[in-house]
Amino acid sequence: MIYFDNSATTKPYKEVLDSFLTVSSEYFGNPSSLHGLGGQAEKLLSQAREQVAKLLAVKLSEIYFTSGGTEGNNLAIKGAALLNKNRGRHLITSSVEHPSVRAAMEQLEQEGFEITYLPVDATGRISAADVEKAIRKETILISMMHVNNEVGTVQPIEEVGKIVKNYPTILFHVDAIQSIGKVPFSLTENNIDFCSISGHKFHGLKGTGALYIREGARIAPLFSGGSQERKMRSGTENVAGAVALSKALRMTMEKSAAGTERMKKIQSMLRTGLNRIEGITINTPIENAAPHILNFSLNGLKSEVFIHALEQREIFVSTTSACSSKKKSPSKTLLEMGVPESAAESAVRISLSFDNTEAEAATVIEAIEKTVNQLRKVMN
Amino acid sequence: MIYFDNSATTKPYKEVLDSFLTVSSEYFGNPSSLHGLGGQAEKLLSQAREQVAKLLAVKLSEIYFTSGGTEGNNLAIKGAALLNKNRGRHLITSSVEHPSVRAAMEQLEQEGFEITYLPVDATGRISAADVEKAIRKETILISMMHVNNEVGTVQPIEEVGKIVKNYPTILFHVDAIQSIGKVPFSLTENNIDFCSISGHKFHGLKGTGALYIREGARIAPLFSGGSQERKMRSGTENVAGAVALSKALRMTMEKSAAGTERMKKIQSMLRTGLNRIEGITINTPIENAAPHILNFSLNGLKSEVFIHALEQREIFVSTTSACSSKKKSPSKTLLEMGVPESAAESAVRISLSFDNTEAEAATVIEAIEKTVNQLRKVMN
Ligand SMILES: Cc1ncc(COP(=O)(O)O)c(C=O)c1O
Ligand SMILES: Cc1ncc(COP(=O)(O)O)c(C=O)c1O
Repeated sequence: MIYFDNSATTKPYKEVLDSFLTVSSEYFGNPSSLHGLGGQAEKLLSQAREQVAKLLAVKLSEIYFTSGGTEGNNLAIKGAALLNKNRGRHLITSSVEHPSVRAAMEQLEQEGFEITYLPVDATGRISAADVEKAIRKETILISMMHVNNEVGTVQPIEEVGKIVKNYPTILFHVDAIQSIGKVPFSLTENNIDFCSISGHKFHGLKGTGALYIREGARIAPLFSGGSQERKMRSGTENVAGAVALSKALRMTMEKSAAGTERMKKIQSMLRTGLNRIEGITINTPIENAAPHILNFSLNGLKSEVFIHALEQREIFVSTTSACSSKKKSPSKTLLEMGVPESAAESAVRISLSFDNTEAEAATVIEAIEKTVNQLRKVMN
Repeated sequence: MIYFDNSATTKPYKEVLDSFLTVSSEYFGNPSSLHGLGGQAEKLLSQAREQVAKLLAVKLSEIYFTSGGTEGNNLAIKGAALLNKNRGRHLITSSVEHPSVRAAMEQLEQEGFEITYLPVDATGRISAADVEKAIRKETILISMMHVNNEVGTVQPIEEVGKIVKNYPTILFHVDAIQSIGKVPFSLTENNIDFCSISGHKFHGLKGTGALYIREGARIAPLFSGGSQERKMRSGTENVAGAVALSKALRMTMEKSAAGTERMKKIQSMLRTGLNRIEGITINTPIENAAPHILNFSLNGLKSEVFIHALEQREIFVSTTSACSSKKKSPSKTLLEMGVPESAAESAVRISLSFDNTEAEAATVIEAIEKTVNQLRKVMN
């Protein structure tokens, strides 16, 4: 089996699962309990938080554990909007965000907020100048993904961060769910107020995630209650999940340099190999692209048929983002980039992890070529 | 070790952890992915949903997986309020709800909603007649816990359900987080629209839960995004968590009849035993009480000192609910019941699971007597 769908989800590291198991069975106390079992659990939770903070080079008190990327994005965006709505009701984002940002924005629109959806260029990139032009007196938040999940384009968060610095009342949220560990960036140097990550995208567990909230930045909680997570996210803490997240992040960061290098090589091999196959167009840009995603179109073939055919060879890739794949609508990112609808409908995404190999890439190129030829024959 | 703090959290069943592990490692696909790994994950998710639905005697499509009890309560209350705010902005609840209900209500108050907090009698019970009296033209939701987490009082949800039947536009939310598996009740016969449960309270995992949403009842989501969970709760599904939840619920329901009987015996033993100790007053009522909670006051002793002393004997109990224990404020439920502040400050909660034994109860009674005597000696 060759798993090339790591942007949808990754296989958890064995060590991550081991940690989860140990904590769940041996340190099952409620961290809020006053007795020793509670104390042990609280200590583990705090160590996990410290580890995540250290790996992201921020303060312990700036890390909030969540149930995943969608929660982090909704919490940052809705939480900031709700808390700041008396200051202003204008938010800026891009037109190629993940549905968890897009739909949060649309929900806010229904509540009377105004949203600017910035366009992207042919490479899927927004322009920082556009961001600055969109700023108004009433702007309270800019929300932007670091790496696009459908084509891998890296957004200019550093430039936007510089702009934000000149508008101290505008908050800056970065969805780093596809980039963490794969495209290095600094939270503190880029004036980022909120940043969401999701465990299952880097070999952690589904149902785990973290939101960075800069000291001083504030949000209204989505979950009110027992005041856990400094009142930002009440609910009995998923201690084992937090420990698992910190473990997955540590392993990811340790593997990051070498892993990213390898992914770049594999990506480049795939690019060269696929470019040679007739009727394939690569959609992922060469510049400002993350190392793990390669999106291409199979002109004239339906991507869904293609991925099922490839699955016969035990190779797993995807049509577009997992979230959108069942709706069968073509990739929004590709359409926004100006890719024609027919090409968008035949788009395929390969997404790598640190554990993929060049040998796998060679096998995949060959399999794609065979599959394309087979399908074209059937169609003629 | 004798763990008598099961209302704070429970030890996960080994079988639950095994299921979680198997699903996480072997069926790690994203249920939204079109390929076979996604299909396997989706099938497991759907089986888990079917099992939970069957155990709660409701439809498959009425079960929504969440990250826990606090999420379920916030989602039902805020989600219903947000969606129905143009119909009315009045909500009814009790004055002894868990903070995840109380604080959600308070947040809604800040957003312009009006909340009626009904009083309770000396046993901690609200009166259904009070509920009916509180209903106005603008009332959109009644939210009520089934079993109180601090003293174990069972609220009259059947009677309230009958009242709600006469007001078809009023939604009815029940927080069954402390009652599920311990105090039988029917979702469909009591006109319940929303019902929250939490995995870690019945030997499942922290970070897992479910919300029942009756077919036809609607909410605005807290997490918007990829449209998972029928758009009510977007985000990549925690498949292993859902399977673990369904397993824990199945095991709980299977053990329920015998387990509840045993808990009743133990509770009665404890009541008799503790009643004989001088200076102990039992706060949990005899009628309308859940079988697993026994709350008592140690007149003149600080509960925190007491639970630490008991811990020396490897017995784990709690002062009040875990959420409130670190705030060191006395139990709100006890104060609302009219228990004097000094008695509320010396309150201790014992909470049982199906796995506790009569032998443990005998040990605990003896240990409590010794500890009380010891502490009183030190104080004199
Ligand atoms: C860029 C991006 N943002 C947000 C999400 C949502 O994260 P999660 O699946 O943890 O809810 C994803 C993945 O699904 C993503 O790729
Ligand atoms: C009655 C009640 N409601 C809600 C909750 C919150 O559930 P969770 O701990 O899963 O967030 C609890 C327990 O903490 C509870 O006892």
